[in-house]
Amino acid sequence: MKSKTTVGILLFENAEELDFVGPWEVFASARVVTGNLDVVTVSEKEGPIRAAKGMQVIADTTLARAPKLDVLLIPGGDGRRKEVDNEVVVSWIKKTAATCEWVTSVCTGAFLLHRAGLLHGKNVTTHWSRTDELEALGGITLRRGARYVRDGNVVTAAGVSAGIDMSLWLIGALFDAETARRVQKSIEYAPAPPYTAEV
Amino acid sequence: MKSKTTVGILLFENAEELDFVGPWEVFASARVVTGNLDVVTVSEKEGPIRAAKGMQVIADTTLARAPKLDVLLIPGGDGRRKEVDNEVVVSWIKKTAATCEWVTSVCTGAFLLHRAGLLHGKNVTTHWSRTDELEALGGITLRRGARYVRDGNVVTAAGVSAGIDMSLWLIGALFDAETARRVQKSIEYAPAPPYTAEV
Repeated sequence: MKSKTTVGILLFENAEELDFVGPWEVFASARVVTGNLDVVTVSEKEGPIRAAKGMQVIADTTLARAPKLDVLLIPGGDGRRKEVDNEVVVSWIKKTAATCEWVTSVCTGAFLLHRAGLLHGKNVTTHWSRTDELEALGGITLRRGARYVRDGNVVTAAGVSAGIDMSLWLIGALFDAETARRVQKSIEYAPAPPYTAEV
Repeated sequence: MKSKTTVGILLFENAEELDFVGPWEVFASARVVTGNLDVVTVSEKEGPIRAAKGMQVIADTTLARAPKLDVLLIPGGDGRRKEVDNEVVVSWIKKTAATCEWVTSVCTGAFLLHRAGLLHGKNVTTHWSRTDELEALGGITLRRGARYVRDGNVVTAAGVSAGIDMSLWLIGALFDAETARRVQKSIEYAPAPPYTAEV
């Protein structure tokens, strides 16, 4: 039997709520379904962080105390603008990613992966409104219009809600399609948007 | 111009994370898009609550201090089993709903609306695995397979992720389709599940 997979989701001030809670819900449901996965949220410091839309959340552990991770997930949100210059966070991402099976981002979390040097030469995506900005950083091939892009062991998702789809794909990769379907059913993920998103 | 709409999302121990964060993300994005909506989380007591999958969240305000609400949203999660017997919470829901424009639930949050007497004679839905249990409480017509059901000013959504779709529908009802589309685009909600949910 495969040893237990541990997923770590980075939290930081002004991380976007659904960027991390969508994947959290998918992985935590996979914990219930499989009994062979753990998921933890990780922040630089102890105490509440205020997410981008104002929700206050307390992470499970800190960068310094985080367990060995197999999957790293970096959410986006306006806070990424500050965190790319946070040496403690960026070096932790770099060091942690080096021993992960999968390295992933949601939305503008891709900017943190880029700063950590993890996207060099990769096909990637990010929030639709930030693709030009990411592309301008260089060294990557931007895949516009993709829901998520896998290149080697790096998976970057499009904006906010795309983290749900990417996380389900990862469950399929870590376990199998049947497990992913069970997780999907547990969160009744048969989306039916009442409008189309194009404006 | 329409006066500002205030949305209140109830939090309680073991509320399901995506049940409340999905709608939170939609309403908070509508706050940004419209400048004419507020959204607050409300819990019985101050201090962190632990959600159903283990995430710790601190609500914006308490039942006693909550502002006048126009939209009430009750999430589900295993905690609903305890909260239906919490007189303080159930009577707050009943009293608050009486002056709301819209009264809504996600997933098994419908059980709290039922206990508060708000579903009598209504067409409703809940998480697919709990429809028989809700129907057995009586006085309602269960609509299985619906993503969300509107009956008068009560809107009940199916499980977990369905709260996102319902909330977008509500943005369309509170504002207009164009506003809902702008919110949807801001969270890049063009879902593409990699698997189908049926098992």
